[in-house]
Amino acid sequence: MSKGVINKPFFIFNPKSYLYGNELLDLAVLADELASKSNISVFVTAPYSDLKLVSENTEHVIITAQHMDGISPGRGMGHVLPESLYEAGARATVLNHAEHPMTLNELVQSMNKAKELGMVTIVCADSLAEATAIAKLNPDILLCEPTELIGTGQTSDENYIRQTNEAIKNVNDSILVMQAAGISTSEDVYRTISLGADGTGATSGIVKADNPRQALKDMIQAADRAYQSRDGKE
Amino acid sequence: MSKGVINKPFFIFNPKSYLYGNELLDLAVLADELASKSNISVFVTAPYSDLKLVSENTEHVIITAQHMDGISPGRGMGHVLPESLYEAGARATVLNHAEHPMTLNELVQSMNKAKELGMVTIVCADSLAEATAIAKLNPDILLCEPTELIGTGQTSDENYIRQTNEAIKNVNDSILVMQAAGISTSEDVYRTISLGADGTGATSGIVKADNPRQALKDMIQAADRAYQSRDGKE
Amino acid sequence: MSKGVINKPFFIFNPKSYLYGNELLDLAVLADELASKSNISVFVTAPYSDLKLVSENTEHVIITAQHMDGISPGRGMGHVLPESLYEAGARATVLNHAEHPMTLNELVQSMNKAKELGMVTIVCADSLAEATAIAKLNPDILLCEPTELIGTGQTSDENYIRQTNEAIKNVNDSILVMQAAGISTSEDVYRTISLGADGTGATSGIVKADNPRQALKDMIQAADRAYQSRDGKE
Amino acid sequence: MSKGVINKPFFIFNPKSYLYGNELLDLAVLADELASKSNISVFVTAPYSDLKLVSENTEHVIITAQHMDGISPGRGMGHVLPESLYEAGARATVLNHAEHPMTLNELVQSMNKAKELGMVTIVCADSLAEATAIAKLNPDILLCEPTELIGTGQTSDENYIRQTNEAIKNVNDSILVMQAAGISTSEDVYRTISLGADGTGATSGIVKADNPRQALKDMIQAADRAYQSRDGKE
Repeated sequence: MSKGVINKPFFIFNPKSYLYGNELLDLAVLADELASKSNISVFVTAPYSDLKLVSENTEHVIITAQHMDGISPGRGMGHVLPESLYEAGARATVLNHAEHPMTLNELVQSMNKAKELGMVTIVCADSLAEATAIAKLNPDILLCEPTELIGTGQTSDENYIRQTNEAIKNVNDSILVMQAAGISTSEDVYRTISLGADGTGATSGIVKADNPRQALKDMIQAADRAYQSRDGKE
Repeated sequence: MSKGVINKPFFIFNPKSYLYGNELLDLAVLADELASKSNISVFVTAPYSDLKLVSENTEHVIITAQHMDGISPGRGMGHVLPESLYEAGARATVLNHAEHPMTLNELVQSMNKAKELGMVTIVCADSLAEATAIAKLNPDILLCEPTELIGTGQTSDENYIRQTNEAIKNVNDSILVMQAAGISTSEDVYRTISLGADGTGATSGIVKADNPRQALKDMIQAADRAYQSRDGKE
Repeated sequence: MSKGVINKPFFIFNPKSYLYGNELLDLAVLADELASKSNISVFVTAPYSDLKLVSENTEHVIITAQHMDGISPGRGMGHVLPESLYEAGARATVLNHAEHPMTLNELVQSMNKAKELGMVTIVCADSLAEATAIAKLNPDILLCEPTELIGTGQTSDENYIRQTNEAIKNVNDSILVMQAAGISTSEDVYRTISLGADGTGATSGIVKADNPRQALKDMIQAADRAYQSRDGKE
Repeated sequence: MSKGVINKPFFIFNPKSYLYGNELLDLAVLADELASKSNISVFVTAPYSDLKLVSENTEHVIITAQHMDGISPGRGMGHVLPESLYEAGARATVLNHAEHPMTLNELVQSMNKAKELGMVTIVCADSLAEATAIAKLNPDILLCEPTELIGTGQTSDENYIRQTNEAIKNVNDSILVMQAAGISTSEDVYRTISLGADGTGATSGIVKADNPRQALKDMIQAADRAYQSRDGKE
């Protein structure tokens, strides 16, 4: 998997630790169908022990780990071995999420391993300052998610999105910018992509929806429509 | 899986992050055959993303995670969700290994989750002081592994093993005591079980052996012989 | 400082990071006067860089660090060197506070250093399970503070206090048991000591009081009265 | 203390946790005399509980903390409160040292507090990748110290120093670049400054020297001479 294959916009379905086993698989298979019918790149994250299950039952989504340690085969008892994730089918990994913050040194090591294995890196930043620092490390995707907004239902406001986008692209314009703070509905997805994000994603907007399958479907389609509409205007 | 089903002695094949995928599976399947032919309980640890693979291809070994966080389904991005490990086939977990130390609070929470799910807890201690503290938490298996000896090839000396055993059983005599420091050869395994350990295990003595399959076989058989011989004398 | 000199009851004024410099010194000096007029042992915690200031201006209170790493002189850049705390006048240290949790291995090492230097250890537990484990490590004082109650204004209920006390003394009856969850007023102090705690203490009940000096005075006197009254009955 | 007052070259005497109390004070006072007689900026780090002692007995050196948490007065039990360090006399702090690595989020917060209080930030990087990321955060001083060379007695080679310098200044040319890997002798100091470092420093080269006072004196003088000589040539 190289960055070249990530279509814009992309959508990351990130069920975190809410789902596992068959309940996760059901939604992952749906995401796979949706991905096959659109030009959009769809990432699906899974707990480490579900990566293989999801990978073996999908074809079009990019299987994504929730974290990965920058180690090589050897000791590392209890750590998350990159080679084992890749073998299980992961082709991308989230790094430095607010719920699993990394030291800068660990982040660099994990990014080096991802590059070595050809895995996409989706690196999280809690603030504009962090985002510009991370941009120098050449992640494939930079996820701007101000901690104070996560899960509150308040979408990042227009200014925030534009400024963040601009600040990151100024440092390194080959980075794809994901903005996912406060995405609760497909309208949030549409608006965020319309405002210039390269991609977005959701957790609670899907897993806590009355109908998670419908929510997932609506969001992926909203991302697709928003980009086509934006594209036309550009 | 309840402690009732752990036979003495037990042997833990703990390849840490040395092995994954098919190379790990090959040894796990061998361990499974050996386990089926003896009264010994054999645990096999695996990276999180290999648990399902190993579980689906074995019947007699106890599939064991290398670590587990004390969380329940929900956020916990990048953390190790107990329910996902169980669903993948894990029925035991190592906790507080020297390479993945836990705060006391985290340890208690993870042990509570293991109990809730009916998973065996294999808790590590770096010193006699730690071991007696952990013994009050009622782990199924307590692994005494003085950090300074790990991987050096020096077996714990007789006194150390006897004193540790006694100290732990004095606090809580229902705990199984595992001693695995410096186990390099099947002779080390034999000696450690003979000296009174309820179980033992190995990492580098197997994965770095010229013939890992032979080493694994020799060690499991040595554990079996040592216990029968000890039993006869008791 | 040996445990022999800790009088019962004891009171720990723990301003955490709320106070520093002269504002802290003012209350520490008041605590010192109150300590000199009673049989009660009074501990005062301070930020590391204020230990010397508080120590040089007091005689009767026991100067207490908020944490201490189990290292010896050497590298340890940025870590909290026990010898430097002792030299600055600290004769006690809190360990494993819920806001600074330690791995079990770190806790054992820090307790070993405290013993080596003759410093009192005040070790925190978040639950009864943790408390009984820590009791095996022989702390001088064990602080039972269920995380969920800290700072809520709800005093630990009578049953909780009695059960905790009993559980700890059953494991090791030479440990002094401190109970400080939800201590907001001098009435809480009186009640907690009356219910059998060897000591108690407060943070927000003092630093956030309208009149912190008065609150500190009232609490120390309440601890003294409660114990004398309890003593009479025993 | 603002960056404006840092003279080039600067020298950081960083005794880590090797020294405390009077032994530390003795060398700090010597550093103070040497600083008063030169145009060089001299920083002296100290354990938290020694900051006040060193500050009260010196005039010319910049008192430097070994680490600082990005918290404000409040809870933060056991954490390192910036305001308490400032009050004790610290006017600079090291951050993200290899022996006390920080998450990127923590680093940003600590740097924000330092800016708020007017303290100099000396931020460490383990690799060129880290250094360029940190450079975007506008530290006052960026310390390039490849982990693998620390304390080995091997000075960073010429190429490494020049490339690092250039990479950092390319990102942000207002940053002062410190290079201190493997500085054992005054010759190492002279060479490192000659090769273009804005500053350097030492730990073991001084505290483990047969005559630490002489070593400290020689190094500070070497830094001064090297820069004057380099300056002449520029």
